[in-house]
Amino acid sequence: MIAFTRGVPAMEAFPVDQIRECAQDAIGKHWNTILQYGQSRGFILLRERMAAENGVQPGQVLVSQGALQILDFIASAFVGPGGVALVERPSYDRAITVLRRAGAQVLAVPMEEDGLNVAALEQLVQVHRPRLAYLITDFQNPTGSSLSAEKRQKVAEIARRYQLLIVEDIPYRKLRYCGKELPTLQSLIPERTLQLTSFSKLLSPGLRVGAVFGPQEFIDPLVKRAEDTYITPALLSQATVFEYLDRDWLPAQIERLHDLYRPRMEAMLAALAQKMDGLASWVKPEGGFFIGLTVNKDLQAAEFLRRGKEAGLSLTDGCGFFADGRGDRFIRLPFCALTPEEIQAGIAILSRLITEWK
Amino acid sequence: MIAFTRGVPAMEAFPVDQIRECAQDAIGKHWNTILQYGQSRGFILLRERMAAENGVQPGQVLVSQGALQILDFIASAFVGPGGVALVERPSYDRAITVLRRAGAQVLAVPMEEDGLNVAALEQLVQVHRPRLAYLITDFQNPTGSSLSAEKRQKVAEIARRYQLLIVEDIPYRKLRYCGKELPTLQSLIPERTLQLTSFSKLLSPGLRVGAVFGPQEFIDPLVKRAEDTYITPALLSQATVFEYLDRDWLPAQIERLHDLYRPRMEAMLAALAQKMDGLASWVKPEGGFFIGLTVNKDLQAAEFLRRGKEAGLSLTDGCGFFADGRGDRFIRLPFCALTPEEIQAGIAILSRLITEWK
Repeated sequence: MIAFTRGVPAMEAFPVDQIRECAQDAIGKHWNTILQYGQSRGFILLRERMAAENGVQPGQVLVSQGALQILDFIASAFVGPGGVALVERPSYDRAITVLRRAGAQVLAVPMEEDGLNVAALEQLVQVHRPRLAYLITDFQNPTGSSLSAEKRQKVAEIARRYQLLIVEDIPYRKLRYCGKELPTLQSLIPERTLQLTSFSKLLSPGLRVGAVFGPQEFIDPLVKRAEDTYITPALLSQATVFEYLDRDWLPAQIERLHDLYRPRMEAMLAALAQKMDGLASWVKPEGGFFIGLTVNKDLQAAEFLRRGKEAGLSLTDGCGFFADGRGDRFIRLPFCALTPEEIQAGIAILSRLITEWK
Repeated sequence: MIAFTRGVPAMEAFPVDQIRECAQDAIGKHWNTILQYGQSRGFILLRERMAAENGVQPGQVLVSQGALQILDFIASAFVGPGGVALVERPSYDRAITVLRRAGAQVLAVPMEEDGLNVAALEQLVQVHRPRLAYLITDFQNPTGSSLSAEKRQKVAEIARRYQLLIVEDIPYRKLRYCGKELPTLQSLIPERTLQLTSFSKLLSPGLRVGAVFGPQEFIDPLVKRAEDTYITPALLSQATVFEYLDRDWLPAQIERLHDLYRPRMEAMLAALAQKMDGLASWVKPEGGFFIGLTVNKDLQAAEFLRRGKEAGLSLTDGCGFFADGRGDRFIRLPFCALTPEEIQAGIAILSRLITEWK
């Protein structure tokens, strides 16, 4: 079975021995804070370090148990029942779920090759006065596309003009395998941006360390929710990440990830070029975990997934990525946790299944 | 400043070296599951072990990031906006907050020396048809009192008669310093009980490992919420706790805690007997973290706290423990994180402040 399903890191990506050393030191050096209650905002040394690296004050950072949990706090603090939240179409399925669970009406801005359609964004903002727009600006989940530099400027202008809160989620940003880094929305409009980031894709998802940066008046209500929900986050994980950063090990780890994932992305792009020409369209990503495929035929997702399974291919239902549920023709292809051989074999099967679809 | 405020474990209660060894082994042995995504229900080996110890199936256990987070899932799954939730009066302030945040109408059952007033419970159930009753049955937070064996039977009967869901929170249960263990509500009415438990008071709060046991049909909706909120819990903490249990270190650790905390409880009871006679009433607890004091004068909490601070005593506002906010005369006294000397000095100051209050 080839798993074209969840976007998880490769098992060989985890720096196990380094993490073990860091966890041990975290307890040895910081036990008197990390074993006790306290620090709802997150482990103080990690917060201070992340604040300094991002050019903000420590009060502008909340470190929590993964970025999704923070989005949950954002949804209840800033959207709430009946409020409108914008996402990209398609977007990260779990983000849509979290926003809806808070009672949000989720509307979607169509994606293009270079990121969302800016005119559509502005129109939706004018008509629906959304409480926020949730955007994955680099190597988007699930399409792989990045918001172009020009569009970033325009999104920032729209946010400024309409006082729109931007939630910029950048879990993949440091996993750029080619091309040039683009300015974050946070750098363009810091006063209206909450930036979500995470160590899940860089170090380990099981540690559950994610953070949000933003203006302190937006962070404080999130801290209140964090404290009311779990009092204190799992501090051993956070101190372990701090020790990792403090040893300056992250740059080399990211290099290792580039070396591991770049050939996989290239293998998938090569296989797509070879097998999918005329059958589907896709964006060539410059990093991240995913390539999104839009098939030229009218697939029916449930039946297509069933056939995939029969043929040894496990696929994610594309509909979950579409706020309107109409994602039958969309297939998210994660490439990081598969070898180039698995990728080639998987794309060959997928190509055959699409060809045979009637 | 003597901190009669939060109920935290003593710093000397943490088995630091043991936890460090367990964390190291957790990564060494279980890295391939705990560093990755997965296991929304919690680290599988810990779940299996806790299930076996509690005589339930693994599917009846969710291990999460502290018990409060689980109560948050319970509140949204089983109460929701407008639903009624019962608590004791007084009860754990953070529990009241979590229930209210989910939109619950929180009503309170008066506490007596031997736990809640059962007739009042039944009447509230008849009139308001609550979705659940949140009860801390052993060494209650904040009063220190335990629900008597006889009343446990009656609560179970009421739950059976009215199909009431019981949330039984027992974080202190294993910290019994004298007297005899009483049957849990879960043992009396397993089909209507969700039992919350935690390692925060036994090992370390900063690890953030709490669990819930119950019928699988009540657990599954909580698991869905857990997955939708954080995908995967902080597994390093959970595997560390598993390693601790697997070495059979917990019984000796609990003995150490008894030896550390029993004299502190006794010191506080002695100081109260000596200094508070005629000024206040309290229940003599048999374990846990707290003694709740009800002052015989009409205090005004904010002003009394201010005077406390002036006199070198930091106190918690009692009003938060009362769903109706009327807790001006209530003072929660935690004894675990203070030495007997601090306890004596603190109670002497408190006695003077109450005597001087007009």
